[in-house]
Amino acid sequence: ASTRSGSKCICWLTVMIFILIKCNSLSCQQFIISFQTVSDCVVGHFYDVSSLSCVQCGEDQRASATGLACVCLPGHRVHKSNGASLTCQRCPPEKPAVTEDGFGCIRCPGGLSEEGTCLCPQGTVRVERDLQGNPLDEARCEACNGDGPAFSVPNNNGDSCERCQASFVNTSNSCVCTPPNVLCRHSLCVPPLSVCVSLLMCSCITQSIVCVCGGCIQVFTNLTACQALGNMCVMNMHSFSSVTNDACGLFNLIFRSMAALGTTQDISYWRTNLPWLYYGDQPGLAGRVLQTDPLPIEFSFKGSKKNTDIKLISAVYDVRGEFLRWENVSGGSLQLCPDTALRQRAAYTFGTAYQESVKLLRTYPEPLFYDVFVDLSQGEARKLLAVPSLVLNQQYNGRYVNQENVKNWYLSRRVFVVDTLSGREKSLSSKPKAIRVAADIKLRFQLVPGTQKGQAFPPLLSVSYKDVFLTDLATQTVRVSFAVEYEMDQNEARKRTDIALGVMGGMAVLYSLLKTVSWKRRISSPLVDMETLLKFLLFYAGDLANVFFCITVGTGLYWLIFSKAQQFVSVLLPLPAQEERMVTYIGCAFALKAIQFLHKLILQLSVDIFLIDWERPRSKAASGEAKRDPSPVSIWRTYFVANEWNEIQTIRKISPTFQVIAVLFFLEVLGFSNLALRDPWSTLERPPQAYKPPYSLTLRYALASTLWLCIGLLQVVFFTVFHERFVEDKIRQFVDLCSISNVSMLVLSHQCFGYYIHGRSVHGHADTNMEEMNTNLKREAESLCGQRGLLPNTDTQTFQVSISTRLRQQYDRIREPLGRRNGPSRLVDASSANPFEQSTRAYNTMNRFLGSVIDHVGAHRDMDYIVKDKLFLERVIGMELLEPNEKSIFYNDESHSFSDVLFYGNEATLLIFDTLFFCVVDLGSQSFVLAAVLTYVQQMIFRWIRGVLGRRNLANKTLVDERFLI
Amino acid sequence: ASTRSGSKCICWLTVMIFILIKCNSLSCQQFIISFQTVSDCVVGHFYDVSSLSCVQCGEDQRASATGLACVCLPGHRVHKSNGASLTCQRCPPEKPAVTEDGFGCIRCPGGLSEEGTCLCPQGTVRVERDLQGNPLDEARCEACNGDGPAFSVPNNNGDSCERCQASFVNTSNSCVCTPPNVLCRHSLCVPPLSVCVSLLMCSCITQSIVCVCGGCIQVFTNLTACQALGNMCVMNMHSFSSVTNDACGLFNLIFRSMAALGTTQDISYWRTNLPWLYYGDQPGLAGRVLQTDPLPIEFSFKGSKKNTDIKLISAVYDVRGEFLRWENVSGGSLQLCPDTALRQRAAYTFGTAYQESVKLLRTYPEPLFYDVFVDLSQGEARKLLAVPSLVLNQQYNGRYVNQENVKNWYLSRRVFVVDTLSGREKSLSSKPKAIRVAADIKLRFQLVPGTQKGQAFPPLLSVSYKDVFLTDLATQTVRVSFAVEYEMDQNEARKRTDIALGVMGGMAVLYSLLKTVSWKRRISSPLVDMETLLKFLLFYAGDLANVFFCITVGTGLYWLIFSKAQQFVSVLLPLPAQEERMVTYIGCAFALKAIQFLHKLILQLSVDIFLIDWERPRSKAASGEAKRDPSPVSIWRTYFVANEWNEIQTIRKISPTFQVIAVLFFLEVLGFSNLALRDPWSTLERPPQAYKPPYSLTLRYALASTLWLCIGLLQVVFFTVFHERFVEDKIRQFVDLCSISNVSMLVLSHQCFGYYIHGRSVHGHADTNMEEMNTNLKREAESLCGQRGLLPNTDTQTFQVSISTRLRQQYDRIREPLGRRNGPSRLVDASSANPFEQSTRAYNTMNRFLGSVIDHVGAHRDMDYIVKDKLFLERVIGMELLEPNEKSIFYNDESHSFSDVLFYGNEATLLIFDTLFFCVVDLGSQSFVLAAVLTYVQQMIFRWIRGVLGRRNLANKTLVDERFLI
Repeated sequence: ASTRSGSKCICWLTVMIFILIKCNSLSCQQFIISFQTVSDCVVGHFYDVSSLSCVQCGEDQRASATGLACVCLPGHRVHKSNGASLTCQRCPPEKPAVTEDGFGCIRCPGGLSEEGTCLCPQGTVRVERDLQGNPLDEARCEACNGDGPAFSVPNNNGDSCERCQASFVNTSNSCVCTPPNVLCRHSLCVPPLSVCVSLLMCSCITQSIVCVCGGCIQVFTNLTACQALGNMCVMNMHSFSSVTNDACGLFNLIFRSMAALGTTQDISYWRTNLPWLYYGDQPGLAGRVLQTDPLPIEFSFKGSKKNTDIKLISAVYDVRGEFLRWENVSGGSLQLCPDTALRQRAAYTFGTAYQESVKLLRTYPEPLFYDVFVDLSQGEARKLLAVPSLVLNQQYNGRYVNQENVKNWYLSRRVFVVDTLSGREKSLSSKPKAIRVAADIKLRFQLVPGTQKGQAFPPLLSVSYKDVFLTDLATQTVRVSFAVEYEMDQNEARKRTDIALGVMGGMAVLYSLLKTVSWKRRISSPLVDMETLLKFLLFYAGDLANVFFCITVGTGLYWLIFSKAQQFVSVLLPLPAQEERMVTYIGCAFALKAIQFLHKLILQLSVDIFLIDWERPRSKAASGEAKRDPSPVSIWRTYFVANEWNEIQTIRKISPTFQVIAVLFFLEVLGFSNLALRDPWSTLERPPQAYKPPYSLTLRYALASTLWLCIGLLQVVFFTVFHERFVEDKIRQFVDLCSISNVSMLVLSHQCFGYYIHGRSVHGHADTNMEEMNTNLKREAESLCGQRGLLPNTDTQTFQVSISTRLRQQYDRIREPLGRRNGPSRLVDASSANPFEQSTRAYNTMNRFLGSVIDHVGAHRDMDYIVKDKLFLERVIGMELLEPNEKSIFYNDESHSFSDVLFYGNEATLLIFDTLFFCVVDLGSQSFVLAAVLTYVQQMIFRWIRGVLGRRNLANKTLVDERFLI
Repeated sequence: ASTRSGSKCICWLTVMIFILIKCNSLSCQQFIISFQTVSDCVVGHFYDVSSLSCVQCGEDQRASATGLACVCLPGHRVHKSNGASLTCQRCPPEKPAVTEDGFGCIRCPGGLSEEGTCLCPQGTVRVERDLQGNPLDEARCEACNGDGPAFSVPNNNGDSCERCQASFVNTSNSCVCTPPNVLCRHSLCVPPLSVCVSLLMCSCITQSIVCVCGGCIQVFTNLTACQALGNMCVMNMHSFSSVTNDACGLFNLIFRSMAALGTTQDISYWRTNLPWLYYGDQPGLAGRVLQTDPLPIEFSFKGSKKNTDIKLISAVYDVRGEFLRWENVSGGSLQLCPDTALRQRAAYTFGTAYQESVKLLRTYPEPLFYDVFVDLSQGEARKLLAVPSLVLNQQYNGRYVNQENVKNWYLSRRVFVVDTLSGREKSLSSKPKAIRVAADIKLRFQLVPGTQKGQAFPPLLSVSYKDVFLTDLATQTVRVSFAVEYEMDQNEARKRTDIALGVMGGMAVLYSLLKTVSWKRRISSPLVDMETLLKFLLFYAGDLANVFFCITVGTGLYWLIFSKAQQFVSVLLPLPAQEERMVTYIGCAFALKAIQFLHKLILQLSVDIFLIDWERPRSKAASGEAKRDPSPVSIWRTYFVANEWNEIQTIRKISPTFQVIAVLFFLEVLGFSNLALRDPWSTLERPPQAYKPPYSLTLRYALASTLWLCIGLLQVVFFTVFHERFVEDKIRQFVDLCSISNVSMLVLSHQCFGYYIHGRSVHGHADTNMEEMNTNLKREAESLCGQRGLLPNTDTQTFQVSISTRLRQQYDRIREPLGRRNGPSRLVDASSANPFEQSTRAYNTMNRFLGSVIDHVGAHRDMDYIVKDKLFLERVIGMELLEPNEKSIFYNDESHSFSDVLFYGNEATLLIFDTLFFCVVDLGSQSFVLAAVLTYVQQMIFRWIRGVLGRRNLANKTLVDERFLI
């Protein structure tokens, strides 16, 4: 019993282990199989497609030609065939051959083939069954009767006779192609036509062309031979010469010889039965074809009559000359670059510049040939207009005529996209050594000059083929591109620009001359020297920059508005090649503006400034005791004024950073940059999957500059109308501060010209405590005291001053010891060793001197001045007509024109400079973000320079220590 | 003679007119033709492909079936055929029929067909020529012998007998399919197998399935019938139920019945001769298949072992079950969205999240079926791993099991992309009413948890089919998408984040408590009231914001670094659905930080400030004559100091605009934003034609915050180390200014805590003229006078002050009348009517009071103070341990911590707030430019608020007129 239970136990164990192993193998199985393909199967194995592996065939069997099944070995017939279970049986010696169907054995009249079937001689058919299908014991070989009326040859299977091809009968009156007729590809018998046979003399002509030629002239079947000849010529890129006779030469030969047949469809270049390949047989007809009559279509971008569809249709032929179908070209027939249908269709929207290029190399089954037409159908009237093509590789007597002047162009028709055929070396089944690709296809529309109705001339399809020698199809690529371009005659626009440039440039010369004269007056120098010329050039740079800027912005805006807002197409954007002048102008404008900007900056950094303190010591107890003044006049008001002046040096009428950010916001976030695309749409948002045409430089410039100027102007308006009136006006605050602090300011921007801010306190004293200050302010608010003006009972505190030479000389004389402070160290006399003392003395002298001049008191009666209003003319031309010979002249100036020596008063120059800087960076980099960043950095750098150097100049000239200018 | 010359003239004229017309017609011809297609040709016309127009056929002719040529009418034989020149001839009455080749006439044994040829009965062949090809006078109809050993039937042409299909012989032993055998599609004879015939009882089963079924079990030819049955099941989306018997049910029936044949390739779900469709016949095996063993491939992103190729290969079958080829899936087999090969290949790069969807509807010739494998081949060892697919539409007993939990999933194999076949209603040549499209294909990889070697589990191909009912093929579209996703187990990461959040959140509670205690001390209030709780919450908001910020930036950086820098794949980015927590955390951080920022802003806008002027009138001639002081102390120094304080209120340790611009520059111009793409590459520049994966929110956040923080820190370092040391330090300048101008500043940020800047001039007087100022400055530069510190011989000018309650009460008492100035108008007593006077008096009192307290003089001995250093601990925890009960305490503070009441001292908060603002806007809008613009605007607004309200507060507290704060 124990043995039994033991064996039972062992049995259970075995079962459990088996189950465990089974489970384990189930859960762990990785579903990995070995990878075998048909070619991996060795002899005697076939590829089992259900198990994806090689399986051995049965006895007397071998793999079939495809390798996917088994067949019986030669000499074996199929005994039983039930799907996979095939059994074979060796044929008996008396019937050694296997029948064609493989199921029977048969005797042979002749030998056996390698497959074990009976062999029959050429021109005979093998008969294995009788007419009722009963198998014969011995196969028979029957010769087909090739003479009339039978005209029979063996069929493809070789098991019955059928009528031979008509051309044999026609030429030889039998099924044998007897000389001198030519047998073509075993299927056509061509008579020895003189035209074609003349070609045979030349060994360079292949026989197939002769066949096609003969076929076309005489034996063409369904007209395809002539089309095939034409396609051969197309594959040869339409090239021919008058000397050698290749496909195109042959075509032209036939074309001329068939003149008698007449023309097709009333087109003189299209002969009956022949394809239409050339526009005339002489070069130079291009212009007439392209620019005579516009398309009878009116393109329109907007409104109810919106029409932007370019309907191109093409007749498609294969290489054998068979007509395949009419095909809509917008389905992407000519576009090799793979893309979504939506994007490919965008190429056929009028006005949308299309440009796509990609590197690829695919295999194409067979070349197709396209006869492209514009579909003019409207309702019932169905019309087509032939689109001429320009093959850039086309040679005419060895010259690339189509790459020359338009007068030599040789227009043609029918294009192909990829030719994988002519590159095959031996047979058509071999792999091509090279393929010919239409690497650059360009469809070019030209607008009728002066049209208001959107009329365009017929488009031109320009094609450039490229031969690619195949080395490795997997990695090799070729660059192909497809483009649609729209062009209009830019001569008119260019002429207008030139005229505007001439006129405005001339006016700028006059204006600059005026400025130079004004400048000469202000420095009171009558001599015309080199410096004057230089100054004139500097002024002219600024004015010319404005001229260039106006013209470029105007032109850009013109294009922007007209190209984006037009309903009927009347203008088309200049092509990239036509934009070069524009870019040059912008460059000029920027360079000249930069010169003007730097010039102004340098002038601003070297103005003469002096702060006149009107405060007099209070305790004038004894006028003789001036030396022992117990309470000196505090310098802090001067410090305060100088500090404020330092702060307003770099403020502007706009916030430059906000400007940069706002422009970026409009362009990149709101999508205004989409307006610069080369298409007629004015929408800001484009769906991400839509085609995105290239950018137009002109439009980018117009957009950027307009946006920059508009936002700038809006800011200026906001700041001057709202901010300065209701929030804070730094300039007015400064003038007020002068008045409250009892400090006047004299700024001399030229030798004898400058600005004066009258800051004499109406309260007599400003150097006082809080109590009195508050009282003073309150009194003034309640108009209890006098007015702040220089003249009694006036309010005018700011003046332009033309000072007399004498005054200036005196001014310079007092300043003279200060000039040394920064000059090179000299052998100074020991007495005036302390520069501090010297400068303080000079400061006090100057203070007293200027105070007395302005007060009309003291010893400076000969440097008196008069106050007057500026004439209107003087304001307009910016020049003073009166010369301050005897007396200096103070011109009332309510408009705070002293800000001309600050950034504040030169907003126009700065704004235009920034605009041009932004645009130039953008044109160079095509990135608005980079342009914004660099513009910001540029603004920062120049503000810093102006700030630091301006502060130094202020400290030098006003003698206020730089440490107080914070 | 005149007549002759006249007629000559007329002749010439005619010629010239003719030439003119000719020329004109030439130059004007528009090359317009009428548009005709084959279908436009009326009866008796054919379509001439060379002229692209309809042309009439000759006599006795009509257009051929294609319409591209002419053929003879029925009853007419071809007389002469020479290409286009075809002539026909009516057959004579004695030979009324035309032979098959069309060239001869013949007598018929029976009737005539419509084409005019002889008609023979079914099962017979028509013989028109003898064996040698000679035409017979009368055609013969011969019946084919269908019995053995002939087994013959007429061939396709009907002109000879051939052996019939093997299945007929096998089942019926003749060429007739005798009942009960089933004739399938006239080409197959299937025996009445019990399994299949049981289906026939059910009328819902079409005969074709029975044929396929029978074919699969018994008569399969080349194994295709079983594959075809499988494909039918696949087209039915693998759905089956245990009740009805459709294609899949049948497949499973056969699968079970064929158990005896054994399995293929050692895979238990793959039976011999059958395709492999299911992973087991029970749901729920998914987990085991998907997560047991990783792929034996190590993916690696960098280095010499770089391996990111996902090699997918598939066996392709057509609908008839024929094996077509092995196809590389990366060629775009499964991708319906048209795109360039380069971009399509990007889907099979490991680690690159791929997502492409497009709306389209194309026509596809015929459905193809894909058995997808991973190619594991390395060198000679060629192995494949089966990829399981998950058909989301698969039904199991009516339930969509695959849309449920993974435990119920029912994995399968073999997918198709488009099925245009099953939607055809009647015959295969009719147009489909509906097509079935694999609208969503998703390939999902899952990383092995914790792998360091880039191991992934086998991928899962999840497919969702969609039926589209065709209405208009031209405009109808269907949305299809193809995606590749990479997933890893995020639980570990989530757990770690939670722990960090808990720990740091707890620490933040402690820190906030400490801050609250410190605050209670500083306002010297011992009560714990609602305000305390609110304050605690406000402090906690700030600290918690920092915690969230640290965790999110840390997590983001972790993903950024590990996903972009890893060599062997060890982490994969969280999927968009897994990013929700992260986004929530960022939102929390931003909201809390905003609360903290606003809290700080409000505190800063309400600090107490007083400027103590140390200057005493100079002419202390008679101390009793204080009223009649001839020269009052000038207030201008106080103005100057207040003005400067106003200006430094909003300066920061960085330039915020530069920050925005620099971040934008890095992200958008240098292309750092490309680092946030869901792929493993860390290159900044991507070629424009390359595939661009979607952005990862986590990476965008990590990138933006890191970049912002880094540039911010760099700026802080630049400003503190370089700019403030060598160019300008506004804070130090302010302290110096205080000292030079003899004005001290007391800022009370809390009730009893604040900052003191000691500005007593070492020269005694500062209210002096330029000469003395310069002398003073020079003396100090040469260290000829005392030091500036509060204590003798020290330099420390800045202090943190803890003032005693008594001092504060006195301070408030003096300030009390000023509080009214802005309060509501009251019934003030007439005596103190003038608010100016009142405030000036208060100012003077306060000036004297504070001056005497700091000078330890006068009547305020009980408000004395001591100066001491802060303990290290006090510095660290930001709290004073000593309470200023008796004496106020002045802590030396070299680090200018008074800037805590300015923007300057809160750079960390501001920087983090800006960072979060930028990131939150970017997460919402996915646009860095918009985020930059809005951040700039936000900075501008808060700076403006801080500036305006800060100025108002300053004017209120220091009594300096707002007009001097410019």
